[in-house]
Amino acid sequence: MNCEIINIGNELLIGQVVNTNASWMADRMNRAGFSVGRIVVIPDDRGAILGALETAGLSSSIVLVTGGLGPTKDDITKEAFCSFFNTKLVFHPESYHDVERLFAQRGMGVTELNRKQAELPESCTPISNRNGTAPGMWFERAREGGSTTVFVSMPGVPFEMKPMMDEQVIPKLRALFSTKSIVHKTILTQGIGESFLSEILEPWENLLPPQISLAYLPQPGIVRLRLSGSGDDEVTVQNMVDQEARKLIRLIPDYFFGYDDDLLEVLLGNLLTKRRATLSTAESCTGGAIAHLITSVPGSSAYFKGGVVAYSNEIKKNELGVPAGLLEQYGAVSREVVCEMAAGIRAKFATDYAIATSGIAGPSGGSAEKPVGLTWIAVATPAGVQAKSYLFGEDRGRNIRKTALQAMNNLRKVMLAEG
Amino acid sequence: MNCEIINIGNELLIGQVVNTNASWMADRMNRAGFSVGRIVVIPDDRGAILGALETAGLSSSIVLVTGGLGPTKDDITKEAFCSFFNTKLVFHPESYHDVERLFAQRGMGVTELNRKQAELPESCTPISNRNGTAPGMWFERAREGGSTTVFVSMPGVPFEMKPMMDEQVIPKLRALFSTKSIVHKTILTQGIGESFLSEILEPWENLLPPQISLAYLPQPGIVRLRLSGSGDDEVTVQNMVDQEARKLIRLIPDYFFGYDDDLLEVLLGNLLTKRRATLSTAESCTGGAIAHLITSVPGSSAYFKGGVVAYSNEIKKNELGVPAGLLEQYGAVSREVVCEMAAGIRAKFATDYAIATSGIAGPSGGSAEKPVGLTWIAVATPAGVQAKSYLFGEDRGRNIRKTALQAMNNLRKVMLAEG
Repeated sequence: MNCEIINIGNELLIGQVVNTNASWMADRMNRAGFSVGRIVVIPDDRGAILGALETAGLSSSIVLVTGGLGPTKDDITKEAFCSFFNTKLVFHPESYHDVERLFAQRGMGVTELNRKQAELPESCTPISNRNGTAPGMWFERAREGGSTTVFVSMPGVPFEMKPMMDEQVIPKLRALFSTKSIVHKTILTQGIGESFLSEILEPWENLLPPQISLAYLPQPGIVRLRLSGSGDDEVTVQNMVDQEARKLIRLIPDYFFGYDDDLLEVLLGNLLTKRRATLSTAESCTGGAIAHLITSVPGSSAYFKGGVVAYSNEIKKNELGVPAGLLEQYGAVSREVVCEMAAGIRAKFATDYAIATSGIAGPSGGSAEKPVGLTWIAVATPAGVQAKSYLFGEDRGRNIRKTALQAMNNLRKVMLAEG
Repeated sequence: MNCEIINIGNELLIGQVVNTNASWMADRMNRAGFSVGRIVVIPDDRGAILGALETAGLSSSIVLVTGGLGPTKDDITKEAFCSFFNTKLVFHPESYHDVERLFAQRGMGVTELNRKQAELPESCTPISNRNGTAPGMWFERAREGGSTTVFVSMPGVPFEMKPMMDEQVIPKLRALFSTKSIVHKTILTQGIGESFLSEILEPWENLLPPQISLAYLPQPGIVRLRLSGSGDDEVTVQNMVDQEARKLIRLIPDYFFGYDDDLLEVLLGNLLTKRRATLSTAESCTGGAIAHLITSVPGSSAYFKGGVVAYSNEIKKNELGVPAGLLEQYGAVSREVVCEMAAGIRAKFATDYAIATSGIAGPSGGSAEKPVGLTWIAVATPAGVQAKSYLFGEDRGRNIRKTALQAMNNLRKVMLAEG
């Protein structure tokens, strides 16, 4: 089933807003078993809308449209649809009821401008909008040969469009076009680049059954591996995907850490919560990035007591108790110093676990012996302190991010190994 | 001058990659005085490319194409252009020289696959690529009535496309189409929302000369105001824009902090550097976000000694010397406690300045008296400590970000007031 996406909005054409709706919608449609053949961005202009609808309807079975439904400019998109389907606007009481309820929640009465949002083209099936005042619209048009083209108009606000797509549009499209069952599972890895992963996974990937495919989705410091399976029977597909996921994970035990939307800071927080354990951090090169990630999780105050950002050697000595001699002999970026930092913060903040980092984030400060990107990470536990070194890249921001993720994962792995 | 953007790439149609090229290109074209009428995303498919070129050429004077030039799939885009312009691929020695030089830099010889990248359609003018092996291509086609349509093909890799656009394509387009002079100036504000800004600015905005326009570009915690002017004489336009920028800034002295790509953490770092002063931080609700922002700036170790993330009250007492009585009497989120935190870290870390935060980031932990979003920020200087409270919103991530920006700006303003 071929689909075309039309995003309406002047703000997209002047480059003020990145069109994240298009990629989100394309991803959702692909996951549901539809393929997107084209994405078109056009201005809030009646002629442009009519032209785009006409062109899309010629080649696609599904035309998804966003934008131009706001109260100040709704005439353009709705009236364009009226022209296109040769119909007129009529008042739709159920949609008005939705608008009234939304305004009542905000303690406000409905304005005349917003009352107009309940006026919809007569030939459409309205789609309710639980997060806004503009309903979506579903149109069907018969094509030659007896098939149907579906046109769906949705608001451009992501917060309104996304639940409308997930809860109403996609289930209705799947029912109408009876697509195959599609199952996805995303395996998350940390600490290994895309090309190294692909070398490890290639033999297994080459043997994947034809119904299963693999996509690499890299982010700074993390590579997500998405397995997608399709078939007539959902249970069979799910079993096949689960089986391949298990094989995949067995190939990369050191790098696998979670599934789908898992975050390392949340997984680590869950582990600490389950063991009623506490954490502190001593950060040099990451400069607070680890504490920031950990405290971005709601409820983190239950296990995170705090940390020290020890950017200068003076603070490493005075606050973390790193002996001056070690700093002189080995330098701040060394196994010896990072271990003292971890042990120091753990003792001082009286926590069960501690993380410490010391490295050369760049762009300057490197030497032949200790280049930019060299980082030491230590983990302190009730059983002792352990440290590892890493050589990341040249980019300061990416080095900080990669160190923070690696540090959290190191502690997570040490805790899991404790059993 | 109407422009159409065509982005070629299967990865854009499965939602794997967000099409940031389109918004970047649209922004650059608008700044250069061209308007983008349509953006089309199509697959790496010969028929789709030919169809899109044909359609775009009918209505636009400028057609900008990205993607499909990589060594593994370059045949599709280049051969589509050959068909479209009824020409053939020929070896282009200068482009080959560029490829050779790039490979030599990496200490590698040119492979056969990469040699093919120097084969280009005979009727194009090659555009050199300083960051990659695929040259861009510039085509011109006469239209009815004597005007010209320009087709430009560029790589889809942003790192290669962006300098090609800025350094070669846009100057050449401006020379060919002799657009007006366009001048932009972006005024940055912190601590005020878009709607409040717009209330203050409306009377001034209504009196703007017709050649000058204003765009609101909001980000979490920061609203950017972009003034754009156009006219025949660049100096005149620049003077008008500068004059209106001065008027604008006079209307919002408390919120204005910089221009264009300025960052608060960099401006604050510059001030500290200029005064040879040092800084420390004591963060509760921001959990390290301020230290993270400050240390994201290269060279920040010259003025930032470090900080304490005092997430628990125990750490506030033991590490920052906040009296237990104050915590009991006023609670952690209070003027009294945040002032003690700022004074405590400043004394302990022996810095000239210090910042402290304490608030309820949410989503839970609020009360009727102290709701989610309430935040105290203190600034300690050699002259004393001052604190202010803010009521941000419901979203944890945004509250942390807004508090961090506000805290840095508060210190910046206090330092500027010292003269």
